[in-house]
Amino acid sequence: MKTVLALVFALLPLSSVFGQEPEPLPAPRRSGGMPLMEALAKRSTSRAFDAKPLTTQQVADALWAALGVNRSDGKRTAPTSRDRREMEVYVLRSSGVSRYDASAHRLVPVASRDLRTVQSAQEFVYDAPVTFVYVADLSKMSDGSRAAKEATASFDTGFVSQNVYLWCVSEGLATGVRSWVDRDVLAKGMELGPEQWIVAAQSIGWPKR
Amino acid sequence: MKTVLALVFALLPLSSVFGQEPEPLPAPRRSGGMPLMEALAKRSTSRAFDAKPLTTQQVADALWAALGVNRSDGKRTAPTSRDRREMEVYVLRSSGVSRYDASAHRLVPVASRDLRTVQSAQEFVYDAPVTFVYVADLSKMSDGSRAAKEATASFDTGFVSQNVYLWCVSEGLATGVRSWVDRDVLAKGMELGPEQWIVAAQSIGWPKR
Repeated sequence: MKTVLALVFALLPLSSVFGQEPEPLPAPRRSGGMPLMEALAKRSTSRAFDAKPLTTQQVADALWAALGVNRSDGKRTAPTSRDRREMEVYVLRSSGVSRYDASAHRLVPVASRDLRTVQSAQEFVYDAPVTFVYVADLSKMSDGSRAAKEATASFDTGFVSQNVYLWCVSEGLATGVRSWVDRDVLAKGMELGPEQWIVAAQSIGWPKR
Repeated sequence: MKTVLALVFALLPLSSVFGQEPEPLPAPRRSGGMPLMEALAKRSTSRAFDAKPLTTQQVADALWAALGVNRSDGKRTAPTSRDRREMEVYVLRSSGVSRYDASAHRLVPVASRDLRTVQSAQEFVYDAPVTFVYVADLSKMSDGSRAAKEATASFDTGFVSQNVYLWCVSEGLATGVRSWVDRDVLAKGMELGPEQWIVAAQSIGWPKR
């Protein structure tokens, strides 16, 4: 028995969070925020972050703004082509990686490793307390070439990312998206399957003082 | 001389608006609008439009929200990958086709034909008084395959389109984007060059009563 158990633990990946409970999130704020035209007037891309953490409410609001369920039929704040709902938001924090379960509005633990510093060669993003990684499940797109699927997933990611841009403006936070990420290293650390394609990553944090 | 002139006119395309003056737009509203969280809560895709026209102020605000200049360095309300600024917004109305000149915040006439009814096999969009067509100038992307350029242009279009979605919510208007458009027919009618790729079209109008 001891040998069997030892074998089982040896086979588990080091970063595994097997058995760890999903993390509930506070309900998102569905009202308030900056008037839209003012948010558009102030939208910009930032590359300098303070290490100060975000509150749990902010993480919950940012995830809901990105791709939250905003209707009783399960539809989201951002559209997807032909309503395929192939997009998922993963969250990188110092505590590890989790996946946003939009239907239940909670975070599902994926890995316990801090991947914020392996995600990119662009060191400025390391300080940001939160990075969203936008992942498309290409298996939900039955037709078309791989290139066509990637173009569609890219289109669908733009909607999500712009929601986060505007939410950050409203919240006084800095943010910047990039599609230039180390997909292989990230996908391994995030324990993605072969049909899960990383489209882009977006860092979120307080502006560097 | 008469013969030369006759020849010149014979060579001009029928829809040409050669010599027609750019159309100035009222300054966009850079404040006000619906609080962001409320706009996100109400965002949806619509497929039924009333034929009632938009005001000139609404057209100006929608264009600025989409991809207007919001900073003194010429940067926009929506980001583009590596700041290549390859995206352009064309406007289809009953009066014809025009291109949004974001730097001067004006509309440049392109063709006098109403292309709203040839843009798509989806008849529901014909009623919308305005359709934005998002066009990428692929010549501004020097590297990568055609497929990679199209994926990047698709990503960049998502940001623009989401701005328009949220602006429509704020304004009480209906909107829906689609990438399934007749690119050949539209490109010809819009007099696009070989490096101008149509990414998607987005109809905007009052909700059908």
